[in-house]
Amino acid sequence: MADSNRRFILRNRPKGRITGDTFELVEDPIPQIEDGQALVRTQWISLDPTNRAWLAETPTYLPPVGIGEVMRAGGLGQVVASKHDGYREGQLVQGLTGWQEWVVVSDTAPLLPVTEVPGVSTSAYLGVLGFTGLTAWLGLNDIGRPQEGETVVVSAAAGAVGSVAGQIAKIRGARVVGIAGGEQKCGLLVDDLGFDAAVDHRSARWREDLVAATAGGIDVDFENVGGPIMEAIFARLNLRARVVLCGLISGYNDAEPPPGPRTFANLLRQRVHLEGFIVLDHLARIGEAATDLAGWMREGKLKPLETVVEGFEQLPIAINMLFDGANTGKLVLHVSD
Amino acid sequence: MADSNRRFILRNRPKGRITGDTFELVEDPIPQIEDGQALVRTQWISLDPTNRAWLAETPTYLPPVGIGEVMRAGGLGQVVASKHDGYREGQLVQGLTGWQEWVVVSDTAPLLPVTEVPGVSTSAYLGVLGFTGLTAWLGLNDIGRPQEGETVVVSAAAGAVGSVAGQIAKIRGARVVGIAGGEQKCGLLVDDLGFDAAVDHRSARWREDLVAATAGGIDVDFENVGGPIMEAIFARLNLRARVVLCGLISGYNDAEPPPGPRTFANLLRQRVHLEGFIVLDHLARIGEAATDLAGWMREGKLKPLETVVEGFEQLPIAINMLFDGANTGKLVLHVSD
Repeated sequence: MADSNRRFILRNRPKGRITGDTFELVEDPIPQIEDGQALVRTQWISLDPTNRAWLAETPTYLPPVGIGEVMRAGGLGQVVASKHDGYREGQLVQGLTGWQEWVVVSDTAPLLPVTEVPGVSTSAYLGVLGFTGLTAWLGLNDIGRPQEGETVVVSAAAGAVGSVAGQIAKIRGARVVGIAGGEQKCGLLVDDLGFDAAVDHRSARWREDLVAATAGGIDVDFENVGGPIMEAIFARLNLRARVVLCGLISGYNDAEPPPGPRTFANLLRQRVHLEGFIVLDHLARIGEAATDLAGWMREGKLKPLETVVEGFEQLPIAINMLFDGANTGKLVLHVSD
Repeated sequence: MADSNRRFILRNRPKGRITGDTFELVEDPIPQIEDGQALVRTQWISLDPTNRAWLAETPTYLPPVGIGEVMRAGGLGQVVASKHDGYREGQLVQGLTGWQEWVVVSDTAPLLPVTEVPGVSTSAYLGVLGFTGLTAWLGLNDIGRPQEGETVVVSAAAGAVGSVAGQIAKIRGARVVGIAGGEQKCGLLVDDLGFDAAVDHRSARWREDLVAATAGGIDVDFENVGGPIMEAIFARLNLRARVVLCGLISGYNDAEPPPGPRTFANLLRQRVHLEGFIVLDHLARIGEAATDLAGWMREGKLKPLETVVEGFEQLPIAINMLFDGANTGKLVLHVSD
């Protein structure tokens, strides 16, 4: 067991990509707990595009991470000592652990108990059975509502949320087109995950490929990316299409906000329903989502994808993988067993 | 009574503004009707921003007006002769009359009977009791849904739809901020229509004025304009704000689609519900809307605004008034009594 507590502290707000001087790795003794607290050892840290948005000076749906503060992140760990009635030793808990090896929890800084599902790897509670799966499930069920035979387009389709969203849309009987970077990811979507078509946005002819793959137009856009890809999708929206506005990763590293889509007027012409949503607003539904998602996994209808990075000290490098498209499925960092 | 039928025919698609060679005025004999037809004399023609969008080459929610075809427009007239059981002489009818002095109606090209309300001027059936009022009523009731005390911003607030939408929002108990061009219009909104504040977008400091007028943020955007005004509104949307996407007049004269709003990402951050809608999808509810609207007019809570242009031949000039902000309230052209 580690005999110190390593933590990444925000030192400099990145202008674009996260660099070597964005964070400082500090090492302190393992915290002592008092009455009303419990000590959690971090096992897994979730790496999500939204982490980057929390580093900007402007508040998002959460305040910016402050200079000198531990980097905020979702994670999962095990209670190793408790002086709080709500936590018992050995229990798995998840929530905003941050980039630290040890977490002190209390009523003012709680983590949530993990409802364990037999036969599932621990990291899945951060992925398909956690916020990621809940995000895909909420977006599809509450906003996208694909009907049988409708065409659903998912951007960042080989990513954590996209890969689940596309598979749920297939389960709902829709025709699903994924957009992803590179032939390998596109092959995976069609061959392994059962997508009807995939468009490689790194290809010079991705616009033509998108048109060909959505000959009957687009009924649901599960939007994770923004930028030129979203602009091209908006141009092909059908009457009363739904846009599930889940993420805009293409702009998260930009110092200035990127231009909006030139095809914005199509939202009016086609009477589109667009809705932004953030999973943290809907945590109460995680059980309902996990029941569906775990059921589909057992039936073999839903395959979770995961990329694991080993070693706490890799966090600042690992997070850039999200913006390079270097991960397939959920990106998690393994801290300890 | 006119002894000929003047009509405006589309000759050249305008690149930007409508010019002298966009339409040709042709003069033909008054049409003869056959069995199953009725003859309508046009009294009023409605001038709406959406007319301009119908002149573009790309289809909108209706196909483009074809070269050589009569310009499409909403209008109202009186049945002067009928060989159709559904139409009786003297009856007022409305619908897509087009830019012509006489209209032949039939089962394949119908107009709808006007439900007359005592004490109301005929042109009101094209405005506050017609599509215009229905548009404002639908957008506020179905999408905007302002709660008491919420802040509603209406762009093009001194226009046909905006002036009604703002007044309905006031009736619903919201705080209403109108955006309009010029001090006179802004004064009218506050002094005559009871808006809480007005922002003059022709002032050099309109951005600061918008911030000051919406200090608590914006809960509902009744969007008629697009462009920089919408971009500035999006920056101030509150959590779970609603955007009633009703029109984007600022872009209708552009040859190329304008850039989308740089503040688009705020739709995600603030979990905004945005919905495009078009009144033609909801014509069945015109009676329900007219009952509300006529009731509010009788109670003195809703003041209709109207700008009347006299003379059929003025149509191509009158339509540009919409894009110059030269009208206050509903712009109608008076053809005949």
